[in-house]
Amino acid sequence: MTSRIDDLTARTRAFIDEHVIPVEDKSDGDIAAAGGEPVRTSLQALARSAGVFAPHAPTAYGGMGLNMVDRAPIFEAAGRSLFGPMALGINAPDEGNLHLLDQVASDAQRARYLAPLADGTVRSAFAMTEPPPGAGSDPSALLTAAVPTGDGWVINGRKKFITGADGAGFLIVMARTSGGATMFLVPADRPGIGLVRHVTTMDKSMLGGHCELSFDAVRVDAADVLGEVDQGFRYAQVRLGPARLTHVMRWLGAAQRAHETAVAYVSGRSAFGSPLARQGMVELMIADNEIDLAATRSLLLTACRVLDAGGPGREETSLAKVFGAEALHRVADRAVQMCGGAGVSADLPVARIAREIRPFRIYDGPSEVHRMSLARRAVRRYGDSCRTPGGQ
Amino acid sequence: MTSRIDDLTARTRAFIDEHVIPVEDKSDGDIAAAGGEPVRTSLQALARSAGVFAPHAPTAYGGMGLNMVDRAPIFEAAGRSLFGPMALGINAPDEGNLHLLDQVASDAQRARYLAPLADGTVRSAFAMTEPPPGAGSDPSALLTAAVPTGDGWVINGRKKFITGADGAGFLIVMARTSGGATMFLVPADRPGIGLVRHVTTMDKSMLGGHCELSFDAVRVDAADVLGEVDQGFRYAQVRLGPARLTHVMRWLGAAQRAHETAVAYVSGRSAFGSPLARQGMVELMIADNEIDLAATRSLLLTACRVLDAGGPGREETSLAKVFGAEALHRVADRAVQMCGGAGVSADLPVARIAREIRPFRIYDGPSEVHRMSLARRAVRRYGDSCRTPGGQ
Amino acid sequence: MTSRIDDLTARTRAFIDEHVIPVEDKSDGDIAAAGGEPVRTSLQALARSAGVFAPHAPTAYGGMGLNMVDRAPIFEAAGRSLFGPMALGINAPDEGNLHLLDQVASDAQRARYLAPLADGTVRSAFAMTEPPPGAGSDPSALLTAAVPTGDGWVINGRKKFITGADGAGFLIVMARTSGGATMFLVPADRPGIGLVRHVTTMDKSMLGGHCELSFDAVRVDAADVLGEVDQGFRYAQVRLGPARLTHVMRWLGAAQRAHETAVAYVSGRSAFGSPLARQGMVELMIADNEIDLAATRSLLLTACRVLDAGGPGREETSLAKVFGAEALHRVADRAVQMCGGAGVSADLPVARIAREIRPFRIYDGPSEVHRMSLARRAVRRYGDSCRTPGGQ
Amino acid sequence: MTSRIDDLTARTRAFIDEHVIPVEDKSDGDIAAAGGEPVRTSLQALARSAGVFAPHAPTAYGGMGLNMVDRAPIFEAAGRSLFGPMALGINAPDEGNLHLLDQVASDAQRARYLAPLADGTVRSAFAMTEPPPGAGSDPSALLTAAVPTGDGWVINGRKKFITGADGAGFLIVMARTSGGATMFLVPADRPGIGLVRHVTTMDKSMLGGHCELSFDAVRVDAADVLGEVDQGFRYAQVRLGPARLTHVMRWLGAAQRAHETAVAYVSGRSAFGSPLARQGMVELMIADNEIDLAATRSLLLTACRVLDAGGPGREETSLAKVFGAEALHRVADRAVQMCGGAGVSADLPVARIAREIRPFRIYDGPSEVHRMSLARRAVRRYGDSCRTPGGQ
Repeated sequence: MTSRIDDLTARTRAFIDEHVIPVEDKSDGDIAAAGGEPVRTSLQALARSAGVFAPHAPTAYGGMGLNMVDRAPIFEAAGRSLFGPMALGINAPDEGNLHLLDQVASDAQRARYLAPLADGTVRSAFAMTEPPPGAGSDPSALLTAAVPTGDGWVINGRKKFITGADGAGFLIVMARTSGGATMFLVPADRPGIGLVRHVTTMDKSMLGGHCELSFDAVRVDAADVLGEVDQGFRYAQVRLGPARLTHVMRWLGAAQRAHETAVAYVSGRSAFGSPLARQGMVELMIADNEIDLAATRSLLLTACRVLDAGGPGREETSLAKVFGAEALHRVADRAVQMCGGAGVSADLPVARIAREIRPFRIYDGPSEVHRMSLARRAVRRYGDSCRTPGGQ
Repeated sequence: MTSRIDDLTARTRAFIDEHVIPVEDKSDGDIAAAGGEPVRTSLQALARSAGVFAPHAPTAYGGMGLNMVDRAPIFEAAGRSLFGPMALGINAPDEGNLHLLDQVASDAQRARYLAPLADGTVRSAFAMTEPPPGAGSDPSALLTAAVPTGDGWVINGRKKFITGADGAGFLIVMARTSGGATMFLVPADRPGIGLVRHVTTMDKSMLGGHCELSFDAVRVDAADVLGEVDQGFRYAQVRLGPARLTHVMRWLGAAQRAHETAVAYVSGRSAFGSPLARQGMVELMIADNEIDLAATRSLLLTACRVLDAGGPGREETSLAKVFGAEALHRVADRAVQMCGGAGVSADLPVARIAREIRPFRIYDGPSEVHRMSLARRAVRRYGDSCRTPGGQ
Repeated sequence: MTSRIDDLTARTRAFIDEHVIPVEDKSDGDIAAAGGEPVRTSLQALARSAGVFAPHAPTAYGGMGLNMVDRAPIFEAAGRSLFGPMALGINAPDEGNLHLLDQVASDAQRARYLAPLADGTVRSAFAMTEPPPGAGSDPSALLTAAVPTGDGWVINGRKKFITGADGAGFLIVMARTSGGATMFLVPADRPGIGLVRHVTTMDKSMLGGHCELSFDAVRVDAADVLGEVDQGFRYAQVRLGPARLTHVMRWLGAAQRAHETAVAYVSGRSAFGSPLARQGMVELMIADNEIDLAATRSLLLTACRVLDAGGPGREETSLAKVFGAEALHRVADRAVQMCGGAGVSADLPVARIAREIRPFRIYDGPSEVHRMSLARRAVRRYGDSCRTPGGQ
Repeated sequence: MTSRIDDLTARTRAFIDEHVIPVEDKSDGDIAAAGGEPVRTSLQALARSAGVFAPHAPTAYGGMGLNMVDRAPIFEAAGRSLFGPMALGINAPDEGNLHLLDQVASDAQRARYLAPLADGTVRSAFAMTEPPPGAGSDPSALLTAAVPTGDGWVINGRKKFITGADGAGFLIVMARTSGGATMFLVPADRPGIGLVRHVTTMDKSMLGGHCELSFDAVRVDAADVLGEVDQGFRYAQVRLGPARLTHVMRWLGAAQRAHETAVAYVSGRSAFGSPLARQGMVELMIADNEIDLAATRSLLLTACRVLDAGGPGREETSLAKVFGAEALHRVADRAVQMCGGAGVSADLPVARIAREIRPFRIYDGPSEVHRMSLARRAVRRYGDSCRTPGGQ
């Protein structure tokens, strides 16, 4: 099994190096500048030929059905290029949406939504976040509402930062319902859905952008309720745990590439009479990168094992996400610093990798919210059972 | 005097708010997208009308002749907009070049180069940095060479990261000469100067870009040697001390604006049942910003006082530069984090300010080189005079 | 004036080196192990002879009457030894108490309490902090209460961490009164005052320890109310601003000594084939120490100038305190690291300096409380006046 | 198997709570103040009765023969008390020495040295470090020398920071021999061994102290060469890998206890009108502790798995050591901060835990040396194989 994964990792990496990185480098990692949707189509075709497409999808849908532990090295190899996950069909939000559908969708929904998502025929989006004062860091502030009509539902509201929405075939929309929140599968061409604008963000590699959407009396069929009514927040958790980890896997690949680029850069240069790579302040940055990468990988695999064993892993995924988001940006930032002037330029991939990773400290739950949640768990665990001698 | 400076600061800030920030906001701080050279011309005309133009230039050349301590609040006010320094004619590298000319240039050179630079008729560039293995962090690696001919000099070499070179009226070129290095004043249209390319960098606000230039047998008149032959490294120090401080002043303004934007942002929003601005983790970021801004300002003014008193201030300018470059980027980065999704978008100026400040940890001497120099001074100071009891 | 201060600084430093440091080194900075009260008496006599005693006290009381800016280098020189401030009579809490009395006390109180404090005849303590749930980080939780009787007051309550209480001649006691809080001057031998215990703490250099005290129906004369009834919280602020700064001055001296010790240590040693002092990771620690020391000094002097100009300087003293407490401990910690095994031993003063400075992040307001206060000021300043374009 | 380890962990923790922590608390973690050797004897007897003694020793010698992965939770549970590892016989340096003997010793040496070490009859020391300019961070600077005589060896030299030497039954002495370095088993009562002094250090919990020793013509039998002549540096690596990890395990327990103490402390208190445990800046410290503890545990287990699989794990043990030493001290330092005044006192164990963990950033290889080694490995790995596009 391990050798199968090792082999797939090696082939994935070779595919990324040969086919994907050149496209990224030419466009400085800006998917729109690179050509957008046609780039996805052609790269996915190449990935399919190379036998590296859809490692995450259920085998019934043409994928490889890998568990979380086995995904880790493959996703990391794909993440070495900012366009690598898209090339393999394992980019956010499609990869998380596929997982959610596989857990919750009905047979009809699987045929209509999951199957074309798994084979790359369509892209998807996950419409939960809203402009303030709606759902953001605090999902319970959800304002978009769905009300039942005779034969279905009508959705009204506004969504923001909906990654990949422009060009998506369908959306998973989270809306308030009488007893909580509900998820709906909504074809993107449904009347009443408006693309207000692309939000311009520092990251440029996500196909379909980060969109602001309006929902004006959008009708949804009863059959397109995903799972049960009022269970939306629960399903969001089902989606979030693994989605956080696959984010970490992908960004780990990007940070690892930034690190290797920087080490190679300093290896070939000298200043003040000695090789850069042997100067202590540079060695410190190299070592700190090694430490941050290793600690991220360790926390990631710890969490993967919990999920593979069937656990919810709320705490473990939170730990891997919050540490990874910060550590991997530190890695990329040090890589920039090590490369000096070249590091802030588009001549090397390091500046663009730093730019793309930075928002991960905010996306999928800001570090502050994860920390609040980790702290509250610790207080529940240690707050009562321990005595504090002498502290009065 | 103080009230004159307070008044000028207030008028500068009002000018920036009214005339400059709208131009920056519309273009996300990308000067090329904003329109380039014509934007400079029109903003400088407005600044002249508003009586805020050229606070740094000698009064003999139409400026206000402010010393370093008085420049600090004015440059900070200008720096609130990424285009503000350009609007006032105090952007890098023009401002540092003007200072250098004022210290070193002959009368004829003052008339030909300093005067039009002071009144905004032309822009300039400072051509010192070279592609590896030439002069970079370590200026002594200088490869570009000037050799005397009958009536002047001929320069051959290559330069990189030459800010503002595209469109500059003249360049100050540092070249190796037999006894060290020499600075030359070179009109930009001189034959043999090639614009190899614009280096694409993460920062976008500098008019004229960061250019790679080739010098192929470029002839320079004997009268265009700046100061004395072989004294280039000494003049580079003359330029660098104040140039570092004015960099800090300008970026202080940008970081201060990012901070104020973030504080205003969190003041109006709530999550998890309480105002963001009263949540401890947000208060921590606000306070750390206040601390970083105050410490930068204190170190800056300490160094300004040394320069105004005639000192070289090598150590004080290094301290202000290395601390400021790191602290101000931390401020901008925290501002991004406080603003959440909006923080990584172009809807607010914080992401763009973070992007523009980041290279300052590399430009004008990487943090590592400043630290090496600070450490070696400390070792000279404390290495011999102190006994270490008991340490054997 | 400056040369007078330079001279006094030099003489203070020479005095500390010659007379105080040997006593500290022999006892690893533990004042009880060094001999306690008699050590104070003899060192103060020597300081008086050397003309360096009581630089802070009003000239009317035999001191030098220095303002805050002039105190800074003197107190720093004294702080080089953990026993230095005690030797000069400028240790906490005496120095802050003297300042408070000078601002608030009546003529009779000045004669009875201030005069003997200024000349070192007695020591004093400041009894504000209480065991939980009383006054700690949050002074408004004050539980100790004073109620008026016919001819004075009766105090009941409990105090904790009362520095110097054991052996003090009098206490300044903060107690709740009907309209707020009131300060009382209380001779230490007044019946009802109990020394519950010395709280064992990581710092060992404070004469009289950190005591827990009980007040059981302690009678105070009406004439011993300090200032006006119910104005205790206001006077606490009068005391706190300068007291914070003199803390920073003293710890600056200790951290500076740790730094110099470490630089001297690494200057004389080699490992892996090169001098320690030229290895990049060591240079980084040296440079970061230089930066932290310089930034602390800059923030300190900025705040001193505000106080000398008559300002309350709440924000400036808070900035200097919170930054200084953290930066100076970092300096001492890096000094420990630079000295390796010797650094964690009593052979060098660095470990003991780190141990003594650490509590300063908690004493005189924990960093968290200062940050909360800094953040709230920033929110008041920037929260309303700024618009946040586009952030919705 | 897991349930056996879970059970042993639970029993170990219960034993530590009941029998060991009271002894530690009474003496503020100072083993000399607690009573020294008799405390060891009585606690080890109790541990034997409780069935928790010697989990690491080979079963042939009465131990439990646990591998590294299984040791981790047991050693962590023991480490909750500073005296816990001593009580179980798994303290440094005995535990590492036992491992080394088990790998290298002859049958006669096993009977004479390993057996009494395993059952707690004697203690041992590992004499490698020397005073400058001898072996320290850089072992190759070894100065102590052994020369062959007719029937054995004669050792001359000086050692420093030899933990546990005072009272040890035997020493493992590293000495230079003609072809490198050799390890010798030396009974502690051998003539010529002098106890120069106890080095006073910030940590106080190690029985037998950190000693400076002199070796003046100390004779060693040929049969007491450990392993082969000239293989000392190789054996030092055999010892160091697992020794680093068991250090991390033990300190993990101490840091975990500090964290739990602090969480319990803040859970019961309020300030400024809200519970401390719900204030954001406190939650941040709690969460950062959780992150540091989890990341240390993950890196530790990753390295344990490599060693259990027979790998040398140089890189993995280095990563776990350098990250753990820094992270665990951060945890203890935050615990101090959370507990405020009580945190710097002996009323709670947090200050003493911080004090004991701090030297771990220096002992067993300073962080700087581990980082240098990690960096050089990375340069070997990535320095050649990668191209750096565009960086010239």
